[in-house]
Amino acid sequence: MIDVCLFGAGLIGQVHAANLARHPRVRLRYIVDPNPEAASKVSALTGAEIADTQTVMNDLSIRMVFIASATRTHADLAMAAAAKGKAIFCEKPIDLDLKRTDQCLAAVEKAGVPFQIGFNRRFDPSFRALKARLAQGEIGAVEQVIITSRDPEPETEEALAGGGGVFREMTIHDFDMARNLLGEEPVELFATGSSLVAPQYAKLGDYDTAMFVLRTASGRQCHINNSVRAAYGYDQRIEVHGADGMLRAGNRVPTSVEMSGAKAISHDKPYYFFVERYAESYAAEIDHFIICVETGRRPDVTASDGRKAMILCEAALASAKSGRLETVRF
Amino acid sequence: MIDVCLFGAGLIGQVHAANLARHPRVRLRYIVDPNPEAASKVSALTGAEIADTQTVMNDLSIRMVFIASATRTHADLAMAAAAKGKAIFCEKPIDLDLKRTDQCLAAVEKAGVPFQIGFNRRFDPSFRALKARLAQGEIGAVEQVIITSRDPEPETEEALAGGGGVFREMTIHDFDMARNLLGEEPVELFATGSSLVAPQYAKLGDYDTAMFVLRTASGRQCHINNSVRAAYGYDQRIEVHGADGMLRAGNRVPTSVEMSGAKAISHDKPYYFFVERYAESYAAEIDHFIICVETGRRPDVTASDGRKAMILCEAALASAKSGRLETVRF
Amino acid sequence: MIDVCLFGAGLIGQVHAANLARHPRVRLRYIVDPNPEAASKVSALTGAEIADTQTVMNDLSIRMVFIASATRTHADLAMAAAAKGKAIFCEKPIDLDLKRTDQCLAAVEKAGVPFQIGFNRRFDPSFRALKARLAQGEIGAVEQVIITSRDPEPETEEALAGGGGVFREMTIHDFDMARNLLGEEPVELFATGSSLVAPQYAKLGDYDTAMFVLRTASGRQCHINNSVRAAYGYDQRIEVHGADGMLRAGNRVPTSVEMSGAKAISHDKPYYFFVERYAESYAAEIDHFIICVETGRRPDVTASDGRKAMILCEAALASAKSGRLETVRF
Amino acid sequence: MIDVCLFGAGLIGQVHAANLARHPRVRLRYIVDPNPEAASKVSALTGAEIADTQTVMNDLSIRMVFIASATRTHADLAMAAAAKGKAIFCEKPIDLDLKRTDQCLAAVEKAGVPFQIGFNRRFDPSFRALKARLAQGEIGAVEQVIITSRDPEPETEEALAGGGGVFREMTIHDFDMARNLLGEEPVELFATGSSLVAPQYAKLGDYDTAMFVLRTASGRQCHINNSVRAAYGYDQRIEVHGADGMLRAGNRVPTSVEMSGAKAISHDKPYYFFVERYAESYAAEIDHFIICVETGRRPDVTASDGRKAMILCEAALASAKSGRLETVRF
Repeated sequence: MIDVCLFGAGLIGQVHAANLARHPRVRLRYIVDPNPEAASKVSALTGAEIADTQTVMNDLSIRMVFIASATRTHADLAMAAAAKGKAIFCEKPIDLDLKRTDQCLAAVEKAGVPFQIGFNRRFDPSFRALKARLAQGEIGAVEQVIITSRDPEPETEEALAGGGGVFREMTIHDFDMARNLLGEEPVELFATGSSLVAPQYAKLGDYDTAMFVLRTASGRQCHINNSVRAAYGYDQRIEVHGADGMLRAGNRVPTSVEMSGAKAISHDKPYYFFVERYAESYAAEIDHFIICVETGRRPDVTASDGRKAMILCEAALASAKSGRLETVRF
Repeated sequence: MIDVCLFGAGLIGQVHAANLARHPRVRLRYIVDPNPEAASKVSALTGAEIADTQTVMNDLSIRMVFIASATRTHADLAMAAAAKGKAIFCEKPIDLDLKRTDQCLAAVEKAGVPFQIGFNRRFDPSFRALKARLAQGEIGAVEQVIITSRDPEPETEEALAGGGGVFREMTIHDFDMARNLLGEEPVELFATGSSLVAPQYAKLGDYDTAMFVLRTASGRQCHINNSVRAAYGYDQRIEVHGADGMLRAGNRVPTSVEMSGAKAISHDKPYYFFVERYAESYAAEIDHFIICVETGRRPDVTASDGRKAMILCEAALASAKSGRLETVRF
Repeated sequence: MIDVCLFGAGLIGQVHAANLARHPRVRLRYIVDPNPEAASKVSALTGAEIADTQTVMNDLSIRMVFIASATRTHADLAMAAAAKGKAIFCEKPIDLDLKRTDQCLAAVEKAGVPFQIGFNRRFDPSFRALKARLAQGEIGAVEQVIITSRDPEPETEEALAGGGGVFREMTIHDFDMARNLLGEEPVELFATGSSLVAPQYAKLGDYDTAMFVLRTASGRQCHINNSVRAAYGYDQRIEVHGADGMLRAGNRVPTSVEMSGAKAISHDKPYYFFVERYAESYAAEIDHFIICVETGRRPDVTASDGRKAMILCEAALASAKSGRLETVRF
Repeated sequence: MIDVCLFGAGLIGQVHAANLARHPRVRLRYIVDPNPEAASKVSALTGAEIADTQTVMNDLSIRMVFIASATRTHADLAMAAAAKGKAIFCEKPIDLDLKRTDQCLAAVEKAGVPFQIGFNRRFDPSFRALKARLAQGEIGAVEQVIITSRDPEPETEEALAGGGGVFREMTIHDFDMARNLLGEEPVELFATGSSLVAPQYAKLGDYDTAMFVLRTASGRQCHINNSVRAAYGYDQRIEVHGADGMLRAGNRVPTSVEMSGAKAISHDKPYYFFVERYAESYAAEIDHFIICVETGRRPDVTASDGRKAMILCEAALASAKSGRLETVRF
């Protein structure tokens, strides 16, 4: 049994809390959140004790921390945990600032503690199977990757305020997936954004609709399309073209029921949002991290993956402004 | 917290054990199985104490029993539990003998304890959604139901020996689904069986391939096709035709990955067998039973449903021999 | 160029007329129909001359006749054409009476002229591909066949009057397909019919909703389900189960457009009825017949196939009354 | 009956020849091709007379010409036909040179003859239905369009020599479709190309793998992905995202047969290439043109559409070199 602490009792924190509570080999000891109501809710559901950061960091029995708190607190918590030798699972992004990210990574590296970044989609059963079949050479060398990634609904202006913007909050997952599937690092990136859906994004200087093209050194290409709204639910699809064919992973639907009526044949729309769509991947990423900590194996998704995805975000922001294919420097 | 005992640590018992161990409102206190290895396995995974029937029955803190032991023990265990006022979840069939089934039901009725029969497919999310949409009148009055139900692989001769035969072990689920969807009780039934797949079935006077037609009093019809082997995995599909269209529920597949290759476009085959395919329904039926016990609500699938499905099995056996549409008398 | 005459300018006659007019190696010389308007319409579209039966039969340049007139005229026209040495393409059924069918077949046999029966579905590209893959052993020995065959709308009482009934007009195609796919002749047949859709059928002593089970000598099984109404259009599907898997052929849809909306994902319903759904098969069956006549090859679908399908219709009518699995005697 | 002449007896010329020969209201009088064998082949199949350009242009009974000859001859033939008052159906591109294109269009305009450009995909039943449903507002305002367009196999070096390159030969169709679906003219375009598939393209300074992003003035976006090779056949898909959902049109497959085997469920791959995939659209575009000429209606796809698609090709070539979002000036 490994004793763990969870930082953050928000939406994503609750997802982790439920998975940690069900896990046979860990004990969710502490929940830390500045909002007492949120903390109480998680505590009630899981039996975790409400604590403050200091207590947790000083408790030597806590060998593992899950950081799902506000983005601006990630780096501090990670560095504090690293200093105490605790294994760290951290939600993306590590920090919105690259220098601070590098500082944090240096601290983690120095401490030598296991660190996994929360790119949960890598653990989605369909994407994982797709990747494994790519790795087995089922379609030969990769040539083009097409990533469709669309949220069900725009966020409110309140929720957006203080966030990192759409590229750093949403596209970052797609950039990580692009890196994961291209088989080579992207070296150039083109981005373009528009304001077509919800004015609160433009108000903050942000985009609600965007397209991206990434290139690797050998000329492999990746397209990403994003929107903050899809009337039919969370749209998460991947398509990889190689010399010998195409592998793709489509949306998942709640039931297999199909209705043949007088107007059309219809079936379920995809799951509403990430909590439902990626339920399995959230459980699997935690399981992966725990196994890594138990066995000393290096997690498949590291701090460096978090950093590189952030650098792609920066290049995208630059390109959306310059209208140029920007060079990526990791 | 409700303290429960599980009888039976075989394949289906293990499924129930895992769901009971994860359930937030019950405690799996005891596991009873004549096979010490099987019992130990469940005990190790769930923390349940290995016990004998007597102890469990006499332990007043055990308010609920799950009977997933050998078929011939179902009726005795159910009657013993009823006598002690315990709520009973019982795997189908209650007994292979109708008289003994009736005896057991009388005892349960007299004791007034909650009783749910393990027709888990009623709790499958897709079949449940289909049924709910039927009930909402989406396709008007039901006219025909088509049930496809095919196991992945024949059982060995050893496994078959002492069993109730394919109709009573396998088709019984389809008969229950037919009743569930037709909206009227079947009053006539035609069955025909063949030996095309695996000789061990014929050796025991049984069939490995069968077709059925059921009729209700108003003339609604239901077709069932069964085979003990499907090369592509567990095949569980339902199609309901009504005045205004068709509702159907197809197989579920592990991932959404699709491969477009030089020869064909291919996707995952269905889940291998019931443990995977009906994972959600096993969890949901237990949840339903617990809620019923907690709230005093009558379970949706009762002992009477188990009895009626058995009567359809008897009619099917008679029809397969007589070559006639047999009358069903509940 | 082969000069041909078409008997019958009704719906199915018009389909043949259009295909004959477009065919590069035949010339549609005559159209014969007691209804002058119908004949004129075909004549206007194709340039065929309106003629009477006598003229056509006596015209030695007419080497081929297509009989798509009223059922009761089929046998007479076929025997007259046979006597004149003309190749005969005849719509099913040859006659509603088995004796008269046998008489007609004897006359055709004696004359030694090519004869093809209009079981167009054998020439549907999907069903044909399915059959070819069966023949190549892709799923091993056939065990069960499931045929879904549902018309879009019931016929009016007027249209039904004088017809042969649903089994002989509609199910006859499915019986032929069952024979085509089972790989063995059916030797037993069970049928059951209901009146659930449109009272005009029951008024004529007929059924609007029916199910069938056929058995071959080795125990292979076939299920057919029929309805005279499907709200979503013409439903024509086949499913064949064998030792190594399942081959199935689904409905065809007009376009590949899919709509993802706030309520569901929907796509086109199937083609409305046989003219659209089987457009390719009507062209292909004519092409096949012409090639057979040109090359002296025996058509794939012969008078004997027409006769055997009729015998299955008789067995079905008997079974629907007796409630027994009836023996089929070809 | 309209007498027509066809220029060009190559692959695309043969497609037009077959459709013209079958058309009920035109007569394919002449075929013109410098290659006598090709001309003879078309003549044999259709009965068209082999002629030279002069004869055709001087024959006043020829009211309509179909130009499917080598690209470099398009403008001359079109101008000659315009001068003689003949209606012109011209394959794309009008010319690889924009000035010459403009000259040709001016001549056509001056002559006032009907002119249709061969953007056949506009007449594909699925794309056409998608467009019609867009126009009906089914998904509200368009926000993003995704066009997948991949050829089955690279062309040989010989076939490529003298051609206009991939953007002008292949992507031009996608640019037209982008304009057709975006609902606004593109004003900016980004392109990037690679050499990953077949060296003959790079040898000619061309790309075999490319991605494009187009923007309209209001910020609507379109992505196009191209490859000269798709192992699974011709890949032609469209996806349109709007405020209220997504409309998409997938590939079409030869049959509806599905195989469920021990490894996977598989179905047909798409049609091999444009002759099969767009068979209906080639027939429909000719039909549309003939109706336009008969009724004096302006064709839906005009010379101006051909010109604008060429301008997008030029912008794409510039962008692929500059790495910039290039401004489009029609």
